[in-house]
Amino acid sequence: MSMSTEERIDQLESRFAMLDLVSDYCLGFDKRDFDRFMNIWWPDATWEIGPPFGNFDGHEGITHAVKDVLWPAWKQATHYTTNLRVEFKDRDHADGVCDVDCIGTTSDGLARTVGATYTDRFERRNGVWKIVYRHVKMHHFSELVGVTLAPPQ
Amino acid sequence: MSMSTEERIDQLESRFAMLDLVSDYCLGFDKRDFDRFMNIWWPDATWEIGPPFGNFDGHEGITHAVKDVLWPAWKQATHYTTNLRVEFKDRDHADGVCDVDCIGTTSDGLARTVGATYTDRFERRNGVWKIVYRHVKMHHFSELVGVTLAPPQ
Amino acid sequence: MSMSTEERIDQLESRFAMLDLVSDYCLGFDKRDFDRFMNIWWPDATWEIGPPFGNFDGHEGITHAVKDVLWPAWKQATHYTTNLRVEFKDRDHADGVCDVDCIGTTSDGLARTVGATYTDRFERRNGVWKIVYRHVKMHHFSELVGVTLAPPQ
Repeated sequence: MSMSTEERIDQLESRFAMLDLVSDYCLGFDKRDFDRFMNIWWPDATWEIGPPFGNFDGHEGITHAVKDVLWPAWKQATHYTTNLRVEFKDRDHADGVCDVDCIGTTSDGLARTVGATYTDRFERRNGVWKIVYRHVKMHHFSELVGVTLAPPQ
Repeated sequence: MSMSTEERIDQLESRFAMLDLVSDYCLGFDKRDFDRFMNIWWPDATWEIGPPFGNFDGHEGITHAVKDVLWPAWKQATHYTTNLRVEFKDRDHADGVCDVDCIGTTSDGLARTVGATYTDRFERRNGVWKIVYRHVKMHHFSELVGVTLAPPQ
Repeated sequence: MSMSTEERIDQLESRFAMLDLVSDYCLGFDKRDFDRFMNIWWPDATWEIGPPFGNFDGHEGITHAVKDVLWPAWKQATHYTTNLRVEFKDRDHADGVCDVDCIGTTSDGLARTVGATYTDRFERRNGVWKIVYRHVKMHHFSELVGVTLAPPQ
């Protein structure tokens, strides 16, 4: 039950590593930084986005999802992840849940608000934490009727 | 002034414990996970939501607030907590402030956006951090006119 | 490559210090707490907000920006910072990027939604972390057409 100083520091570092992963998901996706985005997934990871997008397996499937499905679906988007809650299963495995708020413009030119919950499994291999499973449950994916999102001129 | 290694690690762990509490408030409320939600409050905690909802004392009052007042008021909601700022009073007491963004549908079927600031007092008893006081200051609780929140089909 | 226990704890503390800075930016700005807001900036800091607001240098410039330009532009606002990603350059210098979601009412009475990305440089001097550079890239600064933001009565 009681952890050594080394184990306690390791767990704190692991918590920040997981925060970085969920942040890099947002930053990588929204800034279309493919390397940052892909770097969060283990090669055998599964990304369950569900309808109408589908589920995607491995780096190949995830690359297809982001390059061929999701980036074309959005002109611009910003994802905001909060409420990350981590439960360690052992030193190298952890379950996570967090919420995302997203606002942006889809390819049809409509402003959208999205709310979703991500259920994650994080795994550490050779000292590096990455996501091995992410399930997306969307609460809403809706038009902000009448709103046009644009930067100031 | 200077802290021991043990005290420094303890404070870092305490910071994550408080992040977990403010996350569990959101996750517990939004997913209607009563145990998760109640587990963040000390039995003698006060939850000052203010008008038009009121103030609620102790586990009994907080149970009433969430089961009889707030859950019935929302069909679905997602709360996003950010900006948590903690000031330690001593090793077992801390003041906090954070902001919450909330989007959801109230029981009248209208889409709503809520912005609020939580002012918290955290207390550690027998090694466990929980909330002993949360004050809610609402900046807005407003209709997203014309918007219908729904997941993709 | 491998860090000492002291260095590892120091880096964890530094990460929380930077989280506090980006939180204090929001809390200081939104609650019009001038001391909290100014305390995040080194005296020689630069705040590049860009058009239509401009760029601001040093405590004098930043004071002008917040007191004469930005606070008058908003009746009320709440900024929510998430996705903070920190890269240490050395023990006392770090680059950061984070996203902000903002909702509020501008001085013309219109409800607004803002999405932006902050690119930061953090620097530690005499043991204290502050921001020496913040660049703002706005993705949108748009009217929430038809929405009136107000607290419940």
